[in-house]
Amino acid sequence: MGNHNIDQISEIIHGRLRLGVMSYLANEEAATFTELKDTLGVTQGNLSVQMRKLEDAGYIEVEKKIVGRKPLTTIRLTKDGRDAFRVYVEALTGVLGNAIKG
Amino acid sequence: MGNHNIDQISEIIHGRLRLGVMSYLANEEAATFTELKDTLGVTQGNLSVQMRKLEDAGYIEVEKKIVGRKPLTTIRLTKDGRDAFRVYVEALTGVLGNAIKG
Repeated sequence: MGNHNIDQISEIIHGRLRLGVMSYLANEEAATFTELKDTLGVTQGNLSVQMRKLEDAGYIEVEKKIVGRKPLTTIRLTKDGRDAFRVYVEALTGVLGNAIKG
Repeated sequence: MGNHNIDQISEIIHGRLRLGVMSYLANEEAATFTELKDTLGVTQGNLSVQMRKLEDAGYIEVEKKIVGRKPLTTIRLTKDGRDAFRVYVEALTGVLGNAIKG
């Protein structure tokens, strides 16, 4: 039956683009900005805006450096981000109930 | 690794309240309006608005009758709703990747 408490599903993580970012980083450890943009199939502007929200929440950390005169942006989950994502997945699977197990 | 195509996650279903409704109905076959409101812990107004969106999408059907002089509203998934929910869960678990399996 599951737990139908939708309040436990973090809105910060639930938005599709932010969910894509969090999931990708949870699975891949780290990603470049371009890798995220291409994998998720989103625009640069959209990705920047949503990443800012995750950064403000303390869920991701963004490192910028210059490599061979080109800017390279690397994104990682923070410890808080990893914890929050785990809680999110638990809440989500609780709400989805049996559907997720089929 | 999963499939990170966030476009395949239906926005109609993904909103938390609508997701709560769809999941509950997928697990429970049918529900009364009061049952949904209490289980999801939402207001009557909010539930009505979100149910209307699911009804407009053809995903739920709403039956109203009078039982012992009291109105009774029963909500069910339609065949389209059940199919769309299955596709949604597949897309979502694809994006979540390994996270959902832990």
